[in-house]
Amino acid sequence: MKSAEIICVGTELLLGDILNTNAQFLAQELARLGIAHYYQSVVGDNPERIQRVVRTACDRAQLLIFTGGLGPTPDDLTHATLADCFGVPLVEHPEILEDIARKFVGRGRTMTPNNRKQALLPEGAQVLTNPRGSAPGIIWQPRSDVTILTFPGVPAELKVMWQEVAIPYLKAQGWVTSTVYSRLLKFWGISESVLAEKVQPFFDLQNPTVAPYANLGEVKLRITALADSETAAQDLITPVEQQLREVGGLDCYGADEDSLASVVGELLQTKGATLAVAESCTGGGLGAMLTQISGSSSYFWGGVISYDNSVKVRLLGVNPQDLADQGAVSHTVAQQMAAGVRDRLNTTWGLSITGIAGPTGGSAEKPVGLVYIGLAGANGVQSYEHRFGASQGREWVRHLSACTALDHLRRSLLDESSQF
Amino acid sequence: MKSAEIICVGTELLLGDILNTNAQFLAQELARLGIAHYYQSVVGDNPERIQRVVRTACDRAQLLIFTGGLGPTPDDLTHATLADCFGVPLVEHPEILEDIARKFVGRGRTMTPNNRKQALLPEGAQVLTNPRGSAPGIIWQPRSDVTILTFPGVPAELKVMWQEVAIPYLKAQGWVTSTVYSRLLKFWGISESVLAEKVQPFFDLQNPTVAPYANLGEVKLRITALADSETAAQDLITPVEQQLREVGGLDCYGADEDSLASVVGELLQTKGATLAVAESCTGGGLGAMLTQISGSSSYFWGGVISYDNSVKVRLLGVNPQDLADQGAVSHTVAQQMAAGVRDRLNTTWGLSITGIAGPTGGSAEKPVGLVYIGLAGANGVQSYEHRFGASQGREWVRHLSACTALDHLRRSLLDESSQF
Repeated sequence: MKSAEIICVGTELLLGDILNTNAQFLAQELARLGIAHYYQSVVGDNPERIQRVVRTACDRAQLLIFTGGLGPTPDDLTHATLADCFGVPLVEHPEILEDIARKFVGRGRTMTPNNRKQALLPEGAQVLTNPRGSAPGIIWQPRSDVTILTFPGVPAELKVMWQEVAIPYLKAQGWVTSTVYSRLLKFWGISESVLAEKVQPFFDLQNPTVAPYANLGEVKLRITALADSETAAQDLITPVEQQLREVGGLDCYGADEDSLASVVGELLQTKGATLAVAESCTGGGLGAMLTQISGSSSYFWGGVISYDNSVKVRLLGVNPQDLADQGAVSHTVAQQMAAGVRDRLNTTWGLSITGIAGPTGGSAEKPVGLVYIGLAGANGVQSYEHRFGASQGREWVRHLSACTALDHLRRSLLDESSQF
Repeated sequence: MKSAEIICVGTELLLGDILNTNAQFLAQELARLGIAHYYQSVVGDNPERIQRVVRTACDRAQLLIFTGGLGPTPDDLTHATLADCFGVPLVEHPEILEDIARKFVGRGRTMTPNNRKQALLPEGAQVLTNPRGSAPGIIWQPRSDVTILTFPGVPAELKVMWQEVAIPYLKAQGWVTSTVYSRLLKFWGISESVLAEKVQPFFDLQNPTVAPYANLGEVKLRITALADSETAAQDLITPVEQQLREVGGLDCYGADEDSLASVVGELLQTKGATLAVAESCTGGGLGAMLTQISGSSSYFWGGVISYDNSVKVRLLGVNPQDLADQGAVSHTVAQQMAAGVRDRLNTTWGLSITGIAGPTGGSAEKPVGLVYIGLAGANGVQSYEHRFGASQGREWVRHLSACTALDHLRRSLLDESSQF
């Protein structure tokens, strides 16, 4: 099977000065177009090493996609090195020179002698026009089994050139024969390994394939189908998605662009319910998560950041005696915070978080990572204890606390038999 | 000259599902430590292709740094493939199994058979302990001219393991000979181009070098020196840093690990002052930023998320008539929010934010991106109008609002002649 390799040229990548967003963009595009892609390489602005990478890539891929090294400065060497690699001279393209000169006039700038270099392309290469900047790329078949595309390193220029010139070319050359379509199912409240065991048989599927991912406490399953059309791909995905959702049950909270906050928001809106939050260790992070969703003002009314105990008493009505007896990190206080904020803001739901984010403040009885989440509904108050551990740091505990709070509310909103 | 190669393993990278921040982190670290690094490779979770990448890398580098493929699922193959590459068996490490089991208990979860796999390492490899997660890495010299380090793909785990284990090992093995030391000066309230013009002559320096960066509204200047020792590098940096700080004035808020929240926290602590916040469009983001700092409970008491106008009135005492006349996004309401939260929480300072984050809700008179920040001190209340624009989206407006609010408080805390 023919495949592509992405080759990013630039010493700034080796120094870590920039993040390689071009590789991600091209990878997504290749995946979307169904073009196989098994390797990516990064190399500095050094002719010998670029040649070495080209030789390696020619042994394992048929489509070489370059970014970077097309600029006017002396360290921009991609085209000159490619010409050397395949033993052809550089040829000056007068139409490129004219185009560059025109663009400079348009921006009120003067063309420098350096820019002449950008008009030199390997003999036999076609110009891959750059509508945004001065550096054109090339489309070149130096050998029958090698196709080369080059793009500037500037992401905005790469994207336009990819969309407008490269995709039509690849389609015309038969590189795009089938469509890859994928669905990302998202889970909360289940570990990657437990979910992996539950859905183990699905990992053997060939089309669609199912693969697990995990990050920041969230587990995902990607279902990917290869087909002649998007409809056909969707037909392959739908039954597998339904089965996975059944196996996942309530742990599966959504798909693709869904977040816990967006799913909770939709449920609240559907039910005409409203929400207020009371946050201690998250310090506002739960509210910030909820208000990331544009339109959240229709169901999220606000809340209280009760970081200091005095605020828990003064603004939420937490009982000072209970605070003294049970401590701020307790079922009792979590429940009083949730009920307090629900009552004071006059919302359907009150959701609270109190815990020890660390790294200091833990004890044997109440270790770092211990978090209580309180949930007050129309007919009652509930609380939940979680132990997120100290090993992954303060922000991890805070992030998990906010997500888990949203997840408790989500499950209560979905559970028709709930006491709330 | 001996050099390193970064090899990132993971089909998710080839699909473009994640951005390769690990490669950037490692590249920065290698640059900082003065370890030469000429190539990066990305390959999927495929044993044959991983082997191919290892063979290529062994021909051109002596230190191979792997990320990814250490997890518990069947597609995590890095260690098994490396063992195959160098013809050694995998050996189970009981101490790793115990460590994994302990971590599972600590989080109240059950270890699965899948996790046993993570205790299998190539024979002869040392364990590179993972204090954050279940997957350990390895330090291994399978041949005299090849050193292998492996890390999980989870960035937080990689970073801790790199700092705590890999750097000391590389120093002990003589990989770190000259020191690159750098200082990052951070600015708020000045644009990159204005700052660049002010400090233009510094960009011509050779050692240390000075280079500008900008992201998320923050401008930075990196001063980088190359020397035989950290002290010698520091001697090169210090005078340049002093000059840059003078040119920057109050716009320079800190360096390196400082954040606006940490700098404000230190100033509050020094003055024995306390802070409360009232947030509308940021929805808790300002509080979340302040409480990222461990120990912030000594000066940050909490606040009110007054997303709905009823909360502004009920919990902050904003005048309903002013709300109706001037609108929630106004100088008047920002000032009443700041004073209200200061009075109700009994703190030295009250800081408020009310604005239009977008993408909807703007008008000709009050466009998306219009934000008012209120600041109430012991002797008065002030407010500030900002227009952050609509073009960069909701999260941009919210982030800039929170940072700018902190910056106003910082300048007031630094200004001895302030009215507050």
